[in-house]
Amino acid sequence: MAKETYYIGEQSLSFPKEVYVISSASVVGKKEGEGPLGGAFDMICEDDKFGEDTWEMAESTLQKEALALAVGKAGLKPKDVRYLFAGDLLGQNIATSFGLMDYEIPLFGLYGACSTAGESLSLAAMCVGAGYAKCVAALTSSHFASAEKQFRFPLEYANQRPVSATWTVTGSGAFLLSSKKGEARITGITTGKIVDMGIKDSMNMGAAMAPAAADVIAQHLEDFGRKPKDYDKIVTGDLGYVGQEILCNLLSKKNIDISGTHEDCGILIYDKETQGTGSGGSGCGCSAVTLSAHYLPKLKDGSYKRILFVPTGALLSTVSFNEGQNVPGIAHAVVLEHIGEEA
Amino acid sequence: MAKETYYIGEQSLSFPKEVYVISSASVVGKKEGEGPLGGAFDMICEDDKFGEDTWEMAESTLQKEALALAVGKAGLKPKDVRYLFAGDLLGQNIATSFGLMDYEIPLFGLYGACSTAGESLSLAAMCVGAGYAKCVAALTSSHFASAEKQFRFPLEYANQRPVSATWTVTGSGAFLLSSKKGEARITGITTGKIVDMGIKDSMNMGAAMAPAAADVIAQHLEDFGRKPKDYDKIVTGDLGYVGQEILCNLLSKKNIDISGTHEDCGILIYDKETQGTGSGGSGCGCSAVTLSAHYLPKLKDGSYKRILFVPTGALLSTVSFNEGQNVPGIAHAVVLEHIGEEA
Repeated sequence: MAKETYYIGEQSLSFPKEVYVISSASVVGKKEGEGPLGGAFDMICEDDKFGEDTWEMAESTLQKEALALAVGKAGLKPKDVRYLFAGDLLGQNIATSFGLMDYEIPLFGLYGACSTAGESLSLAAMCVGAGYAKCVAALTSSHFASAEKQFRFPLEYANQRPVSATWTVTGSGAFLLSSKKGEARITGITTGKIVDMGIKDSMNMGAAMAPAAADVIAQHLEDFGRKPKDYDKIVTGDLGYVGQEILCNLLSKKNIDISGTHEDCGILIYDKETQGTGSGGSGCGCSAVTLSAHYLPKLKDGSYKRILFVPTGALLSTVSFNEGQNVPGIAHAVVLEHIGEEA
Repeated sequence: MAKETYYIGEQSLSFPKEVYVISSASVVGKKEGEGPLGGAFDMICEDDKFGEDTWEMAESTLQKEALALAVGKAGLKPKDVRYLFAGDLLGQNIATSFGLMDYEIPLFGLYGACSTAGESLSLAAMCVGAGYAKCVAALTSSHFASAEKQFRFPLEYANQRPVSATWTVTGSGAFLLSSKKGEARITGITTGKIVDMGIKDSMNMGAAMAPAAADVIAQHLEDFGRKPKDYDKIVTGDLGYVGQEILCNLLSKKNIDISGTHEDCGILIYDKETQGTGSGGSGCGCSAVTLSAHYLPKLKDGSYKRILFVPTGALLSTVSFNEGQNVPGIAHAVVLEHIGEEA
């Protein structure tokens, strides 16, 4: 019989019932296809507009295709998916709304900036873990051009970028979660709080998000009574080179050493030397496509037994930024494990 | 022992465990305070900037105050609340981020346009119903001035408004949900799909949202095997006068007559004759404050035994609108019941 309470520690849930990722898919743009993970993505589109008229519709198409692929890989049909947990970076989540509309599946729209991949997996796992559905989908997207238009400058402006700036990933990752045995198991989550350390530079997202990542990782280890060595990898979403250093420093002050265990999807996805991507990749597509293409296969084949996936988000809009507000961060942690013999 | 599966019909969940609203609070602006429900709100602020420098921070303050009141009414402290399920209408949910940051409570940021009040209550109820937390909060806000700035014209422009336009409510409603006995019980939810009937007029949100409301209400009645007469009221969020007529017409084509049972928060909250609010109130604060101030007391005292609360959202941004996209709608239904003798 299931326990009555599943929450542990201050901010975590441990799932007693089985929650599996049964399939996933990654769809990316040309630049991501040319990066170090290029061979691992399911679909690389040479045309970053994906045949659409606008960057926003291109991003919608990313989500539509990623979900179609994930559903197809699982041998299911869209109607087998009971809920969608999805979001993007654009104002009023329009990439999600217009991308997923035609599926006619009940939708929970989410916004957690670039942490949304963690938020969507968390809520999807909670839903399946409670027995509320047999199969649900979690998906997120970002697009370099729609994000530049939303948050920075028109592409035609060709402005220079500081080295601390990250490069928004054009990509969408979709995950199907189910109580049936799958590729990896989600065994717990730690849900993050907003952390504001007073960063005001919207071109230095890594610094804005690192404190939130440090906070949720430290809390996670405390809640579950674990050490960094209990994980093969502790994977942040898009801190980049600048944020990675800050994260490791912040955690070392709490006597937590993740320097040998930490990886960042934003660092993995581009080649810093040849691709001109500054501090690394970012966007809520960055961590999603990297989890799908790079980490899930390693969890499936047992190369990794357990990882902590920690997408990180910077909470700002052009309005909040122009009004002089800080850029606080948030991060959500998800434990993914190799299934092994037990299944 | 709890059932293994809680989902019923195509899109619904029925909660076998007890999920209660244990307290709620409503904070509104001056105009809402002068409306028909004025006497019922917990806090009415004469200054629509709530002492802040910007409209966005004013909206953040609405959420902050609403949550503080709801927590205080329940005799709890913020740290007793394990998760926040919250959202607003602004790009990148900034009212929510900056309003709730200081609470340091794990946050699930949501975006469902004006349906977010239903989405947040649904996810909060799912969380409590699964035993994932003893107490969580669901809250949403909107602000007339921040919404006009986000979606329409600068206030200083003093443009004319078509009669089909709604008036964004300045307000925030917060709800604490718990497994402990409270003011009303949440017994089920029906989660909506995006419905696009081809409406392109962003000044006629009622028409854009009515099909989604009709869809989720019809599905709800089918999933639960109920008739409109099984509800004292079927309450939409902000269809206004224009949307109400369309909703009743759409449902009558499916042989569902809700004309004697339907109410709309956007119609209740303003006096059409004297307040110049066009088709009615709107915004994700509209349904939230009306549920808190008007419906929950009637459920608590038994005037109503059961209502269906159906906040409705129009999915657009200025970008999607300017790029010629339609304005699709979404709506999420929540069943709230009088507790009565059973508790």
